[in-house]
Amino acid sequence: MWLRASCSLELGVSAPTPLLFMLRPRSGWHQWVAREEYLISPSVTAVEFTDPFGNLCQRLVAPVGDFSVHTTADIEAAEASDTAPGARLSEVQDLPEATLPFLLPSRYCESDLFTELAYQLGDGHALGYDQCAAIVQYIRDTTRYAPGSGQDIITAVDVNERSEAVCRDMAHLGIALCRALSIPARMVVGYLATLVPMDLHAWFEAYVGGRWYTFDPTQSNLNGGRVAIAYGRDAADVAIYTQFGAAVELKSMNVGVVQLLDPPS
Amino acid sequence: MWLRASCSLELGVSAPTPLLFMLRPRSGWHQWVAREEYLISPSVTAVEFTDPFGNLCQRLVAPVGDFSVHTTADIEAAEASDTAPGARLSEVQDLPEATLPFLLPSRYCESDLFTELAYQLGDGHALGYDQCAAIVQYIRDTTRYAPGSGQDIITAVDVNERSEAVCRDMAHLGIALCRALSIPARMVVGYLATLVPMDLHAWFEAYVGGRWYTFDPTQSNLNGGRVAIAYGRDAADVAIYTQFGAAVELKSMNVGVVQLLDPPS
Amino acid sequence: MWLRASCSLELGVSAPTPLLFMLRPRSGWHQWVAREEYLISPSVTAVEFTDPFGNLCQRLVAPVGDFSVHTTADIEAAEASDTAPGARLSEVQDLPEATLPFLLPSRYCESDLFTELAYQLGDGHALGYDQCAAIVQYIRDTTRYAPGSGQDIITAVDVNERSEAVCRDMAHLGIALCRALSIPARMVVGYLATLVPMDLHAWFEAYVGGRWYTFDPTQSNLNGGRVAIAYGRDAADVAIYTQFGAAVELKSMNVGVVQLLDPPS
Amino acid sequence: MWLRASCSLELGVSAPTPLLFMLRPRSGWHQWVAREEYLISPSVTAVEFTDPFGNLCQRLVAPVGDFSVHTTADIEAAEASDTAPGARLSEVQDLPEATLPFLLPSRYCESDLFTELAYQLGDGHALGYDQCAAIVQYIRDTTRYAPGSGQDIITAVDVNERSEAVCRDMAHLGIALCRALSIPARMVVGYLATLVPMDLHAWFEAYVGGRWYTFDPTQSNLNGGRVAIAYGRDAADVAIYTQFGAAVELKSMNVGVVQLLDPPS
Repeated sequence: MWLRASCSLELGVSAPTPLLFMLRPRSGWHQWVAREEYLISPSVTAVEFTDPFGNLCQRLVAPVGDFSVHTTADIEAAEASDTAPGARLSEVQDLPEATLPFLLPSRYCESDLFTELAYQLGDGHALGYDQCAAIVQYIRDTTRYAPGSGQDIITAVDVNERSEAVCRDMAHLGIALCRALSIPARMVVGYLATLVPMDLHAWFEAYVGGRWYTFDPTQSNLNGGRVAIAYGRDAADVAIYTQFGAAVELKSMNVGVVQLLDPPS
Repeated sequence: MWLRASCSLELGVSAPTPLLFMLRPRSGWHQWVAREEYLISPSVTAVEFTDPFGNLCQRLVAPVGDFSVHTTADIEAAEASDTAPGARLSEVQDLPEATLPFLLPSRYCESDLFTELAYQLGDGHALGYDQCAAIVQYIRDTTRYAPGSGQDIITAVDVNERSEAVCRDMAHLGIALCRALSIPARMVVGYLATLVPMDLHAWFEAYVGGRWYTFDPTQSNLNGGRVAIAYGRDAADVAIYTQFGAAVELKSMNVGVVQLLDPPS
Repeated sequence: MWLRASCSLELGVSAPTPLLFMLRPRSGWHQWVAREEYLISPSVTAVEFTDPFGNLCQRLVAPVGDFSVHTTADIEAAEASDTAPGARLSEVQDLPEATLPFLLPSRYCESDLFTELAYQLGDGHALGYDQCAAIVQYIRDTTRYAPGSGQDIITAVDVNERSEAVCRDMAHLGIALCRALSIPARMVVGYLATLVPMDLHAWFEAYVGGRWYTFDPTQSNLNGGRVAIAYGRDAADVAIYTQFGAAVELKSMNVGVVQLLDPPS
Repeated sequence: MWLRASCSLELGVSAPTPLLFMLRPRSGWHQWVAREEYLISPSVTAVEFTDPFGNLCQRLVAPVGDFSVHTTADIEAAEASDTAPGARLSEVQDLPEATLPFLLPSRYCESDLFTELAYQLGDGHALGYDQCAAIVQYIRDTTRYAPGSGQDIITAVDVNERSEAVCRDMAHLGIALCRALSIPARMVVGYLATLVPMDLHAWFEAYVGGRWYTFDPTQSNLNGGRVAIAYGRDAADVAIYTQFGAAVELKSMNVGVVQLLDPPS
């Protein structure tokens, strides 16, 4: 399916401030970017680089005043995310090297503190995909998805003690629990065509059965129409923008996804 | 300056054929891509990856029949390429690691066979930028730029024995001679706004004085309006498309560059 | 100065367990490995790979029973670590890409929670090296170095609330505070020839004035005789071994460093 | 099997000269380095880095006078190289990204000029491993292995016109022919325990059936006892040393491999 996804940020800048953005979805195995636009106003020199996770990042210094970034992309995305009940655990010794960093604890996913709970949840399930599914079910059973409820990013330990959370938080808990079972898990930030209310979305992927699979604690079925913007260990790696210093204020963010009836031509 | 650069390829395919393309200029220190389009017809699954030189490459299998790829990009490019007469040689022991592969001989740049000529040309010049400039002058003095004259890619040794050549060939000779003086040199394929007749262009960069500088044996001044599509050791690394098998015929290629009066908005 | 550094681990394994080790110091700008030994008993297939931070890591499956790893290396290390009072902050927009991951918060270094304290500590000091030095002084003033006191790894926030800690913890606090000032900071695990009592050691490096400098909250002067084994964002990245599952028990670890009177020959 | 492999170089240096060495075999899937020694005399600052192919390289400036490098390593190597008659061609679209550079022509392997011969040799064989085996057979049938016959490195085209060659040359021809069939092929330089007369050895690997397999045009059976020192596109990438400038003369090189009766302990 073809989607037009857009994200507009309006920032107020009170002192020149370095910013890192991650707002350029890239073409890969799961999506193809046919057309895109990345407009910066006022125009300043921006430099793009690839981070250790393969994300395209943009670096610039925002000048004082109103500053806006507007991105749009026409992207072919899968009709639905693959599922694979029964897919087996990839043993640590057989994992591709690139997946190994996603086994370690990270800022918001203290997997080292979840060993007991993870084993309890995984118990009785085939090692691998089914354990991940059980983890997702646990999160849904214990945490209510409350879009807009979470301003500050909290860690998986905190999420686990609350009864409601946002998509990012629930993904963190899922990631921490998978890693505690020696299953590589990574954060995905992106667009989801069917999201209500529309916003950027966060979910996670787990590496089982020899590849990455999508898991989404906040969505009851694995809708397609997903566009990945960035992958990372957790939200610390995939902020759509990171500011250095306190002189930038987010005035508004608008996210839109529409389905295109025809491929771009 | 803002440019709209486009490249359209029409291919005739007589058997399904894997193809690699390098047709996505990326944003970096020297250019910013504000808008781009990459249309494939008929639509097939394409996967993008980053090659060892940082180029964005697209991989797909072309189906039988007419197959076309159309790319367009709106890009901010420098008004002029930097020059630095007198910039000093970066000693091999001080070179950044990423530049070292560009010291070695490669498919079309047999730098190991040019030691004598390179030393002769460099003699009497300050080590570094001025040697590169002397090399470029030698190429201009001995080889006539004859766009369209060269179908087959020839090596630097062959170029040096001819009296006329295309931009790619002349760049190869420049690269081989620089490397023979222990100066890292790399091929650039891209667009040049002022090129007559319009086509894709090739030039080279040499690493002196702590950074890469542009050298262009076929252009009498270092016009700006350059858009880099790909970097590599020589033409073998930066073909805009590589086919595997003999079942693909290039029917037409159209390249266009126009200057935009206003930034994209 | 030439050092012979060794680390021996004796493990008890009750079920076959995948293990990752980081026990191979590598030759780099700051040290040269002239001789090394990496003995595994009983002998099992081990595979080495390079992690995203450039560390050489070894992956194997430990069989049931006693399992030991013994490493020794003869290494040339600097006589003293460089210091650079007054070295200036490298602005975020000018930082090399490879340093950027070390600006972000990580598992044990919640730099996002230290903004206020970091600015307070840095106040009145020249931006850059001197701020790092003030941070180190603060840690020394408020936390007593108590080797052996810390079994569990605690985060910088926890460290900051205690009055005594181990080298690893104190490094975490230093890293978190530096990052809060937009100064890249990374963990180093290694050997220190003058350490009493002898053990593995942890300190940190901060990127100011265009390069990495050593800071060590637990040592009153910047002794040389340092051998880096691994670099990372924090202790989660640089564990000398990581086990997957609960079936491995550390029975003993012996670390030794002696100075060699003559270079290996 | 356990081997002790050593390589000693004696160089005469008439002016300070930057040198790159590739003399540190690394532990990987096919070999484990249990002990190694890398002695430089006189002692100078050396820096190690990893090249784009994953090889550990050492960079230094050799001072005027006699200069020697002595390396020894105790390594566990396979008893025999795997073979896989019938293993199928990995289609280009399915190849891992890291294998793609090994499809392109390179300095000494003009695969673009061997299409006709390669198809002729591969004809009648199952696509994949068996084609590689047919290529090796062709090289053996037409070229006599003459150790010591080749001082200058020649390209695959030249090799194909001669009746005798050294291991390096014959590997180049094999690589060029494999790549002409869209089979990734790479050069290996290393030790071979059974080589007579003892010297460094060169062979090649081709990627078929989802992994790299060893092919050796100069050895009638695929003996084990192979230790890889470096991988690359061809000899230009894997010179055991590269000098910049003409002021270094190789006075002697001694290579030794002995089998160890017991593992190092």
